[in-house]
Amino acid sequence: MRLRNKPWAQKLVAEHPEVILNEPDPDKKINWEERFEDFSKPLAIEIGSGKGQFITTLAKEHPEMNFIGVELQTTAAGMILRTKLEEKIDNLQLMCADAANIAMYLPENSVDIVYLNFSDPWPKTRHEKRRLTYKSFLDKYRQILKPEGHLEFKTDNRGLFEYSLVSLNNYGMKFDYVSLDLHHADDEIFERNVETEYEHKFAAKGNPIYCLHAHFVK
Amino acid sequence: MRLRNKPWAQKLVAEHPEVILNEPDPDKKINWEERFEDFSKPLAIEIGSGKGQFITTLAKEHPEMNFIGVELQTTAAGMILRTKLEEKIDNLQLMCADAANIAMYLPENSVDIVYLNFSDPWPKTRHEKRRLTYKSFLDKYRQILKPEGHLEFKTDNRGLFEYSLVSLNNYGMKFDYVSLDLHHADDEIFERNVETEYEHKFAAKGNPIYCLHAHFVK
Repeated sequence: MRLRNKPWAQKLVAEHPEVILNEPDPDKKINWEERFEDFSKPLAIEIGSGKGQFITTLAKEHPEMNFIGVELQTTAAGMILRTKLEEKIDNLQLMCADAANIAMYLPENSVDIVYLNFSDPWPKTRHEKRRLTYKSFLDKYRQILKPEGHLEFKTDNRGLFEYSLVSLNNYGMKFDYVSLDLHHADDEIFERNVETEYEHKFAAKGNPIYCLHAHFVK
Repeated sequence: MRLRNKPWAQKLVAEHPEVILNEPDPDKKINWEERFEDFSKPLAIEIGSGKGQFITTLAKEHPEMNFIGVELQTTAAGMILRTKLEEKIDNLQLMCADAANIAMYLPENSVDIVYLNFSDPWPKTRHEKRRLTYKSFLDKYRQILKPEGHLEFKTDNRGLFEYSLVSLNNYGMKFDYVSLDLHHADDEIFERNVETEYEHKFAAKGNPIYCLHAHFVK
Protein backbone atom coordinates (compact mmCIF):
# COMPACT_ATOMS: atom_id res chain seq x y z
CA MET A 1 0.00 0.00 0.00
CA ARG A 2 1.39 3.39 -0.98
CA LEU A 3 1.38 5.89 1.89
CA ARG A 4 0.99 9.64 1.58
CA ASN A 5 4.40 11.27 1.68
CA LYS A 6 5.32 12.57 5.14
CA PRO A 7 8.13 15.14 5.26
CA TRP A 8 9.03 14.27 8.88
CA ALA A 9 9.79 10.71 7.77
CA GLN A 10 12.28 11.84 5.11
CA LYS A 11 13.98 14.04 7.69
CA LEU A 12 14.12 11.30 10.35
CA VAL A 13 15.62 8.82 7.88
CA ALA A 14 18.28 11.35 6.85
CA GLU A 15 19.17 12.01 10.49
CA HIS A 16 19.84 8.37 11.43
CA PRO A 17 22.30 6.83 8.96
CA GLU A 18 23.65 4.59 11.75
CA VAL A 19 20.39 2.60 11.92
CA ILE A 20 18.81 3.06 8.48
CA LEU A 21 20.53 2.73 5.12
CA ASN A 22 18.82 4.96 2.58
CA GLU A 23 19.10 3.56 -0.95
CA PRO A 24 22.64 2.34 -0.38
CA ASP A 25 24.99 1.88 -3.34
CA PRO A 26 24.73 -1.84 -4.23
CA ASP A 27 28.39 -1.87 -5.25
CA LYS A 28 29.58 -0.76 -1.82
CA LYS A 29 29.95 -3.41 0.88
CA ILE A 30 27.89 -2.73 4.00
CA ASN A 31 29.71 -3.21 7.29
CA TRP A 32 27.05 -5.14 9.23
CA GLU A 33 29.53 -6.05 11.98
CA GLU A 34 29.71 -2.35 12.78
CA ARG A 35 25.96 -1.79 12.55
CA PHE A 36 24.94 -4.60 14.93
CA GLU A 37 26.18 -5.01 18.50
CA ASP A 38 26.84 -8.71 17.85
CA PHE A 39 26.53 -9.76 14.20
CA SER A 40 27.15 -13.42 15.11
CA LYS A 41 23.57 -13.74 16.39
CA PRO A 42 21.02 -15.47 14.12
CA LEU A 43 19.77 -13.04 11.49
CA ALA A 44 16.25 -12.60 10.10
CA ILE A 45 15.25 -10.22 7.33
CA GLU A 46 11.83 -9.02 6.25
CA ILE A 47 11.40 -7.94 2.63
CA GLY A 48 8.67 -5.29 2.48
CA SER A 49 8.15 -4.29 6.10
CA GLY A 50 5.37 -1.75 5.56
CA LYS A 51 4.79 0.22 8.75
CA GLY A 52 6.83 -2.35 10.65
CA GLN A 53 4.43 -3.89 13.15
CA PHE A 54 5.69 -7.41 12.37
CA ILE A 55 9.45 -6.80 12.44
CA THR A 56 9.44 -4.47 15.47
CA THR A 57 7.28 -6.89 17.50
CA LEU A 58 9.45 -9.85 16.53
CA ALA A 59 12.69 -7.98 17.30
CA LYS A 60 11.42 -7.10 20.78
CA GLU A 61 10.37 -10.72 21.39
CA HIS A 62 13.76 -12.08 20.27
CA PRO A 63 16.70 -10.13 21.72
CA GLU A 64 18.86 -13.20 20.99
CA MET A 65 18.52 -12.50 17.25
CA ASN A 66 19.28 -9.69 14.83
CA PHE A 67 16.68 -8.29 12.42
CA ILE A 68 16.76 -6.24 9.24
CA GLY A 69 13.62 -4.61 7.87
CA VAL A 70 13.70 -3.68 4.18
CA GLU A 71 11.11 -1.21 2.91
CA LEU A 72 11.15 0.68 -0.38
CA GLN A 73 8.92 3.60 0.66
CA THR A 74 10.66 6.29 2.70
CA THR A 75 7.49 7.26 4.57
CA ALA A 76 6.87 3.68 5.73
CA ALA A 77 10.57 3.19 6.54
CA GLY A 78 10.45 6.41 8.58
CA MET A 79 7.52 5.06 10.59
CA ILE A 80 9.43 1.86 11.42
CA LEU A 81 12.45 3.97 12.32
CA ARG A 82 10.38 6.09 14.71
CA THR A 83 9.13 2.97 16.51
CA LYS A 84 12.64 1.54 16.65
CA LEU A 85 14.02 4.74 18.21
CA GLU A 86 11.13 5.30 20.63
CA GLU A 87 11.15 1.70 21.84
CA LYS A 88 14.95 1.38 21.74
CA ILE A 89 14.96 -1.79 19.61
CA ASP A 90 18.71 -2.23 19.32
CA ASN A 91 18.71 -5.54 17.46
CA LEU A 92 16.84 -4.04 14.48
CA GLN A 93 18.47 -2.36 11.49
CA LEU A 94 16.53 -0.83 8.60
CA MET A 95 17.03 -0.34 4.90
CA CYS A 96 15.12 1.90 2.56
CA ALA A 97 15.98 -0.11 -0.52
CA ASP A 98 14.83 -2.19 -3.49
CA ALA A 99 14.46 -5.92 -2.74
CA ALA A 100 15.96 -6.68 -6.16
CA ASN A 101 19.36 -5.64 -4.77
CA ILE A 102 19.14 -7.67 -1.57
CA ALA A 103 21.89 -10.15 -2.51
CA MET A 104 24.30 -7.24 -3.00
CA TYR A 105 23.58 -5.82 0.43
CA LEU A 106 24.10 -8.99 2.46
CA PRO A 107 26.87 -11.60 2.60
CA GLU A 108 26.23 -15.04 1.10
CA ASN A 109 24.99 -17.65 3.61
CA SER A 110 24.40 -15.04 6.31
CA VAL A 111 20.63 -15.13 6.89
CA ASP A 112 18.61 -17.61 8.96
CA ILE A 113 15.08 -16.53 7.99
CA VAL A 114 13.67 -14.48 5.12
CA TYR A 115 10.16 -13.17 5.83
CA LEU A 116 7.71 -12.16 3.09
CA ASN A 117 4.48 -10.77 4.53
CA PHE A 118 1.48 -9.67 2.46
CA SER A 119 3.67 -8.81 -0.50
CA ASP A 120 2.22 -6.91 -3.44
CA PRO A 121 0.35 -9.57 -5.49
CA TRP A 122 1.03 -7.97 -8.91
CA PRO A 123 -1.96 -9.89 -10.32
CA LYS A 124 -1.37 -9.13 -14.00
CA THR A 125 0.56 -11.83 -15.85
CA ARG A 126 2.84 -9.23 -17.43
CA HIS A 127 3.94 -8.17 -13.93
CA GLU A 128 4.89 -11.71 -12.84
CA LYS A 129 8.57 -10.76 -12.58
CA ARG A 130 7.78 -8.18 -9.90
CA ARG A 131 6.25 -10.73 -7.51
CA LEU A 132 8.60 -11.38 -4.59
CA THR A 133 8.22 -15.14 -5.13
CA TYR A 134 9.29 -15.00 -8.79
CA LYS A 135 12.35 -17.13 -9.51
CA SER A 136 14.76 -14.19 -9.88
CA PHE A 137 13.94 -13.17 -6.29
CA LEU A 138 14.26 -16.79 -5.12
CA ASP A 139 17.79 -16.76 -6.61
CA LYS A 140 18.61 -13.88 -4.29
CA TYR A 141 17.08 -15.42 -1.16
CA ARG A 142 18.99 -18.61 -1.94
CA GLN A 143 22.26 -16.67 -2.03
CA ILE A 144 21.81 -14.86 1.28
CA LEU A 145 20.23 -17.75 3.24
CA LYS A 146 22.42 -20.13 5.21
CA PRO A 147 22.14 -23.78 4.09
CA GLU A 148 19.97 -24.44 7.18
CA GLY A 149 17.97 -21.22 6.70
CA HIS A 150 14.43 -20.94 5.42
CA LEU A 151 11.73 -18.68 4.00
CA GLU A 152 8.44 -17.81 5.75
CA PHE A 153 5.69 -16.39 3.58
CA LYS A 154 2.22 -15.13 4.57
CA THR A 155 -0.48 -13.58 2.42
CA ASP A 156 -4.24 -13.24 2.21
CA ASN A 157 -4.06 -13.07 -1.59
CA ARG A 158 -5.21 -16.35 -3.08
CA GLY A 159 -3.75 -15.73 -6.52
CA LEU A 160 -0.34 -14.84 -5.14
CA PHE A 161 -0.33 -17.88 -2.86
CA GLU A 162 -1.32 -20.26 -5.67
CA TYR A 163 1.39 -18.73 -7.86
CA SER A 164 3.98 -18.97 -5.09
CA LEU A 165 3.26 -22.65 -4.34
CA VAL A 166 4.00 -23.47 -7.98
CA SER A 167 6.95 -21.07 -8.26
CA LEU A 168 8.75 -22.28 -5.11
CA ASN A 169 8.03 -25.93 -5.95
CA ASN A 170 9.27 -25.57 -9.53
CA TYR A 171 12.41 -23.84 -8.23
CA GLY A 172 13.17 -26.97 -6.20
CA MET A 173 12.42 -25.57 -2.75
CA LYS A 174 11.22 -28.05 -0.13
CA PHE A 175 8.06 -27.22 1.81
CA ASP A 176 8.24 -27.50 5.60
CA TYR A 177 4.78 -26.17 6.44
CA VAL A 178 1.63 -25.12 4.59
CA SER A 179 -1.50 -23.62 6.12
CA LEU A 180 -4.48 -22.49 4.06
CA ASP A 181 -6.08 -20.86 7.10
CA LEU A 182 -3.34 -19.97 9.56
CA HIS A 183 -5.66 -18.26 12.04
CA HIS A 184 -7.66 -21.46 12.45
CA ALA A 185 -4.61 -23.73 12.54
CA ASP A 186 -4.36 -25.53 15.85
CA ASP A 187 -0.56 -25.69 15.82
CA GLU A 188 2.58 -24.08 17.22
CA ILE A 189 3.17 -22.05 14.05
CA PHE A 190 -0.03 -20.10 14.74
CA GLU A 191 0.70 -19.98 18.48
CA ARG A 192 3.91 -18.06 17.83
CA ASN A 193 2.46 -16.05 14.90
CA VAL A 194 3.22 -12.31 14.91
CA GLU A 195 0.63 -10.27 13.03
CA THR A 196 1.30 -7.53 10.51
CA GLU A 197 -0.78 -4.33 10.38
CA TYR A 198 -3.08 -5.78 7.71
CA GLU A 199 -3.23 -9.35 8.90
CA HIS A 200 -5.54 -8.74 11.86
CA LYS A 201 -7.96 -6.72 9.72
CA PHE A 202 -8.00 -9.32 6.91
CA ALA A 203 -8.43 -12.24 9.29
CA ALA A 204 -11.19 -10.44 11.22
CA LYS A 205 -13.16 -10.16 7.96
CA GLY A 206 -13.08 -13.95 7.80
CA ASN A 207 -10.53 -14.09 4.98
CA PRO A 208 -8.11 -16.99 5.33
CA ILE A 209 -4.44 -16.18 5.85
CA TYR A 210 -2.21 -18.47 3.78
CA CYS A 211 1.19 -19.46 5.13
CA LEU A 212 4.15 -21.36 3.65
CA HIS A 213 7.54 -22.23 5.16
CA ALA A 214 10.12 -23.65 2.76
CA HIS A 215 13.86 -24.12 2.41
CA PHE A 216 16.36 -24.38 -0.41
CA VAL A 217 18.35 -27.54 -1.04
CA LYS A 218 21.95 -26.28 -0.97
CA MET B 1 -18.33 -42.42 2.57
CA ARG B 2 -19.43 -45.93 3.45
CA LEU B 3 -22.63 -46.99 1.70
CA ARG B 4 -25.24 -49.39 3.04
CA ASN B 5 -24.65 -52.82 1.58
CA LYS B 6 -26.87 -53.54 -1.43
CA PRO B 7 -27.25 -57.22 -2.37
CA TRP B 8 -28.09 -56.39 -6.03
CA ALA B 9 -24.68 -54.71 -6.35
CA GLN B 10 -22.80 -57.81 -5.19
CA LYS B 11 -24.77 -59.89 -7.68
CA LEU B 12 -24.22 -57.47 -10.59
CA VAL B 13 -20.48 -57.37 -9.93
CA ALA B 14 -20.31 -61.18 -9.86
CA GLU B 15 -22.22 -61.40 -13.16
CA HIS B 16 -19.86 -59.12 -15.14
CA PRO B 17 -16.27 -60.32 -14.76
CA GLU B 18 -15.53 -59.05 -18.29
CA VAL B 19 -15.90 -55.40 -17.20
CA ILE B 20 -15.23 -55.45 -13.45
CA LEU B 21 -12.37 -57.18 -11.68
CA ASN B 22 -13.45 -58.15 -8.16
CA GLU B 23 -10.51 -58.19 -5.75
CA PRO B 24 -8.16 -59.65 -8.34
CA ASP B 25 -5.11 -61.64 -7.25
CA PRO B 26 -2.23 -59.09 -7.27
CA ASP B 27 0.19 -61.82 -8.35
CA LYS B 28 -1.76 -62.60 -11.51
CA LYS B 29 -1.17 -60.39 -14.54
CA ILE B 30 -4.31 -58.72 -15.87
CA ASN B 31 -4.76 -58.85 -19.63
CA TRP B 32 -5.81 -55.25 -20.31
CA GLU B 33 -5.36 -55.68 -24.07
CA GLU B 34 -8.21 -58.17 -23.94
CA ARG B 35 -10.40 -56.04 -21.67
CA PHE B 36 -10.23 -52.84 -23.75
CA GLU B 37 -11.17 -52.57 -27.42
CA ASP B 38 -7.96 -50.62 -28.11
CA PHE B 39 -5.50 -50.54 -25.20
CA SER B 40 -3.15 -48.24 -27.15
CA LYS B 41 -5.44 -45.25 -26.40
CA PRO B 42 -4.38 -42.85 -23.64
CA LEU B 43 -5.30 -44.29 -20.24
CA ALA B 44 -6.67 -42.50 -17.18
CA ILE B 45 -7.37 -44.12 -13.82
CA GLU B 46 -9.37 -42.85 -10.87
CA ILE B 47 -8.45 -44.15 -7.42
CA GLY B 48 -11.57 -44.16 -5.24
CA SER B 49 -14.40 -43.63 -7.72
CA GLY B 50 -17.28 -43.60 -5.21
CA LYS B 51 -20.58 -43.83 -7.07
CA GLY B 52 -18.77 -43.00 -10.29
CA GLN B 53 -20.24 -39.70 -11.46
CA PHE B 54 -16.79 -38.32 -12.31
CA ILE B 55 -15.34 -41.30 -14.18
CA THR B 56 -18.51 -42.19 -16.11
CA THR B 57 -19.02 -38.57 -17.22
CA LEU B 58 -15.38 -38.24 -18.26
CA ALA B 59 -15.40 -41.57 -20.13
CA LYS B 60 -18.47 -40.49 -22.11
CA GLU B 61 -16.85 -37.13 -22.93
CA HIS B 62 -13.61 -38.77 -24.09
CA PRO B 63 -14.19 -41.79 -26.34
CA GLU B 64 -10.62 -41.32 -27.60
CA MET B 65 -9.31 -42.45 -24.19
CA ASN B 66 -9.59 -45.48 -21.93
CA PHE B 67 -10.61 -45.23 -18.28
CA ILE B 68 -10.32 -47.44 -15.22
CA GLY B 69 -12.32 -46.74 -12.08
CA VAL B 70 -10.99 -48.30 -8.87
CA GLU B 71 -13.33 -48.53 -5.90
CA LEU B 72 -12.90 -50.63 -2.77
CA GLN B 73 -16.57 -50.88 -1.77
CA THR B 74 -18.58 -53.44 -3.70
CA THR B 75 -21.83 -51.51 -3.36
CA ALA B 76 -20.31 -48.34 -4.84
CA ALA B 77 -18.51 -50.35 -7.54
CA GLY B 78 -21.84 -52.00 -8.38
CA MET B 79 -23.46 -48.59 -8.83
CA ILE B 80 -20.73 -47.49 -11.27
CA LEU B 81 -21.09 -50.82 -13.08
CA ARG B 82 -24.85 -50.30 -13.45
CA THR B 83 -24.28 -46.86 -15.02
CA LYS B 84 -21.59 -48.25 -17.31
CA LEU B 85 -23.89 -51.04 -18.55
CA GLU B 86 -27.01 -48.89 -18.89
CA GLU B 87 -25.17 -46.13 -20.74
CA LYS B 88 -22.95 -48.53 -22.72
CA ILE B 89 -19.68 -46.85 -21.73
CA ASP B 90 -17.31 -49.19 -23.55
CA ASN B 91 -14.08 -47.34 -22.81
CA LEU B 92 -14.50 -47.79 -19.04
CA GLN B 93 -13.27 -50.77 -17.03
CA LEU B 94 -13.80 -51.17 -13.30
CA MET B 95 -11.94 -52.72 -10.40
CA CYS B 96 -13.25 -53.51 -6.96
CA ALA B 97 -9.82 -53.44 -5.35
CA ASP B 98 -7.44 -51.91 -2.81
CA ALA B 99 -5.46 -48.90 -4.12
CA ALA B 100 -2.40 -50.21 -2.27
CA ASN B 101 -2.10 -52.93 -4.94
CA ILE B 102 -2.49 -50.63 -7.93
CA ALA B 103 1.09 -51.01 -9.17
CA MET B 104 0.60 -54.79 -9.34
CA TYR B 105 -2.53 -54.47 -11.44
CA LEU B 106 -1.15 -52.17 -14.13
CA PRO B 107 1.96 -52.23 -16.31
CA GLU B 108 4.77 -49.78 -15.57
CA ASN B 109 4.62 -46.54 -17.59
CA SER B 110 1.12 -47.29 -18.88
CA VAL B 111 -1.04 -44.51 -17.42
CA ASP B 112 -1.45 -40.92 -18.65
CA ILE B 113 -3.48 -39.48 -15.77
CA VAL B 114 -4.11 -40.61 -12.19
CA TYR B 115 -7.17 -38.94 -10.63
CA LEU B 116 -7.69 -38.61 -6.88
CA ASN B 117 -11.04 -37.01 -6.05
CA PHE B 118 -12.24 -36.21 -2.53
CA SER B 119 -10.18 -39.00 -1.03
CA ASP B 120 -10.69 -40.01 2.58
CA PRO B 121 -8.75 -37.38 4.60
CA TRP B 122 -7.71 -39.76 7.43
CA PRO B 123 -7.21 -36.71 9.70
CA LYS B 124 -5.49 -38.50 12.58
CA THR B 125 -1.70 -38.40 12.46
CA ARG B 126 -1.49 -42.12 13.19
CA HIS B 127 -3.48 -42.79 9.99
CA GLU B 128 -1.14 -40.73 7.76
CA LYS B 129 -0.05 -43.85 5.86
CA ARG B 130 -3.62 -44.45 4.69
CA ARG B 131 -3.90 -41.09 2.92
CA LEU B 132 -3.77 -41.56 -0.86
CA THR B 133 -1.12 -38.83 -1.11
CA TYR B 134 1.24 -40.53 1.38
CA LYS B 135 4.64 -41.32 -0.12
CA SER B 136 4.05 -45.08 -0.38
CA PHE B 137 1.06 -44.38 -2.66
CA LEU B 138 3.10 -41.83 -4.64
CA ASP B 139 5.65 -44.61 -5.24
CA LYS B 140 2.90 -46.62 -6.90
CA TYR B 141 1.53 -43.78 -9.03
CA ARG B 142 5.10 -43.07 -10.14
CA GLN B 143 5.48 -46.66 -11.30
CA ILE B 144 2.30 -46.83 -13.36
CA LEU B 145 2.45 -43.30 -14.83
CA LYS B 146 4.17 -42.68 -18.14
CA PRO B 147 7.10 -40.23 -17.95
CA GLU B 148 4.86 -37.56 -19.51
CA GLY B 149 1.87 -38.53 -17.32
CA HIS B 150 0.54 -36.60 -14.36
CA LEU B 151 -1.65 -36.64 -11.25
CA GLU B 152 -4.84 -34.58 -10.78
CA PHE B 153 -6.09 -34.19 -7.22
CA LYS B 154 -9.23 -32.45 -5.93
CA THR B 155 -10.56 -32.18 -2.40
CA ASP B 156 -12.60 -29.89 -0.19
CA ASN B 157 -10.64 -31.03 2.87
CA ARG B 158 -8.22 -28.32 3.92
CA GLY B 159 -6.10 -30.56 6.13
CA LEU B 160 -5.69 -33.18 3.43
CA PHE B 161 -4.79 -30.55 0.84
CA GLU B 162 -2.20 -28.89 3.10
CA TYR B 163 -0.73 -32.32 3.84
CA SER B 164 -0.68 -33.28 0.17
CA LEU B 165 1.07 -30.07 -0.95
CA VAL B 166 3.91 -30.87 1.47
CA SER B 167 3.92 -34.61 0.73
CA LEU B 168 4.03 -34.27 -3.08
CA ASN B 169 6.58 -31.44 -2.87
CA ASN B 170 8.84 -33.39 -0.50
CA TYR B 171 8.59 -36.43 -2.79
CA GLY B 172 10.06 -34.31 -5.59
CA MET B 173 6.92 -33.95 -7.70
CA LYS B 174 6.64 -30.80 -9.81
CA PHE B 175 3.46 -28.75 -9.57
CA ASP B 176 1.76 -27.79 -12.84
CA TYR B 177 -1.35 -26.14 -11.41
CA VAL B 178 -2.71 -25.15 -8.01
CA SER B 179 -6.14 -23.68 -7.27
CA LEU B 180 -7.36 -22.91 -3.77
CA ASP B 181 -10.88 -22.23 -5.05
CA LEU B 182 -11.36 -24.14 -8.28
CA HIS B 183 -15.01 -23.15 -8.70
CA HIS B 184 -14.05 -19.47 -8.75
CA ALA B 185 -11.00 -19.97 -10.96
CA ASP B 186 -11.36 -18.13 -14.22
CA ASP B 187 -9.29 -20.62 -16.22
CA GLU B 188 -9.51 -23.55 -18.62
CA ILE B 189 -8.95 -26.10 -15.85
CA PHE B 190 -12.28 -25.10 -14.29
CA GLU B 191 -13.94 -24.80 -17.71
CA ARG B 192 -13.27 -28.49 -18.38
CA ASN B 193 -13.86 -29.56 -14.76
CA VAL B 194 -16.03 -32.66 -14.28
CA GLU B 195 -17.76 -32.73 -10.90
CA THR B 196 -17.98 -35.68 -8.53
CA GLU B 197 -21.16 -36.48 -6.58
CA TYR B 198 -19.97 -34.53 -3.54
CA GLU B 199 -18.21 -31.69 -5.29
CA HIS B 200 -21.35 -29.84 -6.37
CA LYS B 201 -22.86 -30.08 -2.88
CA PHE B 202 -19.65 -28.92 -1.17
CA ALA B 203 -19.11 -26.05 -3.58
CA ALA B 204 -22.76 -24.95 -3.32
CA LYS B 205 -22.26 -24.56 0.45
CA GLY B 206 -19.54 -22.03 -0.35
CA ASN B 207 -16.67 -24.34 0.61
CA PRO B 208 -13.62 -23.92 -1.62
CA ILE B 209 -12.58 -26.87 -3.77
CA TYR B 210 -8.80 -27.30 -3.77
CA CYS B 211 -7.09 -28.63 -6.88
CA LEU B 212 -3.51 -29.69 -7.65
CA HIS B 213 -1.96 -31.05 -10.86
CA ALA B 214 1.57 -32.40 -10.58
CA HIS B 215 3.99 -34.72 -12.35
CA PHE B 216 6.90 -36.93 -11.39
CA VAL B 217 10.40 -36.25 -12.65
CA LYS B 218 11.37 -39.56 -14.28
